[in-house]
Amino acid sequence: MDRQKQDELKQAAAKQAAGLVEDGMILGVGTGSTVKFFIDELGRRKEEEGLALKAVVTTSSRSRKQLEGLGFTVSELADIDQADLTVDGADRVDKQLNGIKGGGAALTLEKNVAVNSKKNVWIVDESKVVDHLSGFPLPVEVLPISCEQNKRRFEAEGLNPQFRLNADGSRLKTHYGNYILDLHVDSVPVPSGLADYLDHTVGVVEHGLFLDICDEVIIARDNGEIETRCR
Amino acid sequence: MDRQKQDELKQAAAKQAAGLVEDGMILGVGTGSTVKFFIDELGRRKEEEGLALKAVVTTSSRSRKQLEGLGFTVSELADIDQADLTVDGADRVDKQLNGIKGGGAALTLEKNVAVNSKKNVWIVDESKVVDHLSGFPLPVEVLPISCEQNKRRFEAEGLNPQFRLNADGSRLKTHYGNYILDLHVDSVPVPSGLADYLDHTVGVVEHGLFLDICDEVIIARDNGEIETRCR
Repeated sequence: MDRQKQDELKQAAAKQAAGLVEDGMILGVGTGSTVKFFIDELGRRKEEEGLALKAVVTTSSRSRKQLEGLGFTVSELADIDQADLTVDGADRVDKQLNGIKGGGAALTLEKNVAVNSKKNVWIVDESKVVDHLSGFPLPVEVLPISCEQNKRRFEAEGLNPQFRLNADGSRLKTHYGNYILDLHVDSVPVPSGLADYLDHTVGVVEHGLFLDICDEVIIARDNGEIETRCR
Repeated sequence: MDRQKQDELKQAAAKQAAGLVEDGMILGVGTGSTVKFFIDELGRRKEEEGLALKAVVTTSSRSRKQLEGLGFTVSELADIDQADLTVDGADRVDKQLNGIKGGGAALTLEKNVAVNSKKNVWIVDESKVVDHLSGFPLPVEVLPISCEQNKRRFEAEGLNPQFRLNADGSRLKTHYGNYILDLHVDSVPVPSGLADYLDHTVGVVEHGLFLDICDEVIIARDNGEIETRCR
């Protein structure tokens, strides 16, 4: 598919997601190429329909810039009660609407916003949709103090951890001063079991398994159709 | 009991713990008034018996200073494989040798060192020993981004959270830039249930429930006896 066709498809999915946004909402906004079109559409609705949001929070500095450029005031999660709706992308999403997120290393903020939202909608293209979570490394944000021990622990469990690196080969540090260990597993047969293991591992701040979080996924299909799946 | 008598008692407990330290060990050292006497005793053994440790890690800057003053080289947890033995204090310890730690706000480093130690020994005075965990606020280290949401969540669960404050009334920030929410619960009937809940709460970095971690507790009894309990 050519770039223009792909963008049109993403725009259609973004427009559908923007249709869920109502006046007076507290809105959470994620990041990604489709979310960019979603923010464009918010701007159009603000301009043409007078869409007024109670507050907006976002997980990304790029989205923040785009939102502020369109005249939206961006708040911090700490300043709001909870979001009415959060729209974000995902790296993988399965049949149960469980997902892997964190390809952009912002999994901790993304999950904190998501669990403090009444409704979560993900917009993805077809390549992200899988029967069972697979095909994408699972990011785990770990405290530097015990990162070597946890890397060895994950190796012993067959989880093939690798530190995420910067272009210069140094270890990538997250916004919170931690490292990312990407787990290279072929598939995650029982995601809740792995999530439980990671939740209980001392030194793990957060992980990229987003289970029982997404309520609706809007899929831009290669054939030009927009498919919606609800939990 | 007068101060001198109390110190003698702590010294006796500290000496017993120091007796567990062997040449060539990688040793973890916590903090507290009894641990201070434990480090004194390590220094005496180094001086008089030529005690040589492979490495020492510690969870406290005060203990680090004392250890370095006695000629021990202090390593970081990242530099070692795992500790052979860690000696620390505790704020409360129950019959199953489960404990509450974190009165000094260092629970995250303390737990990371503890779970990466082959053996954990706690030295406490009688006032810390309880049948069931109670009588001490349970510290929870939380990310600032979602601390307000988690405070409300804990309030809704009846956990009576309070931000730990500095002397000037501002919120205490941990070494890792997070806040401490102290949970004021009368008692913790099934600690593993609460630990599980906290482990799964997004935005919780670590909590002060140390379960299935302590292998041996050395208790300085008010009657002058030193009691040892093993798991």
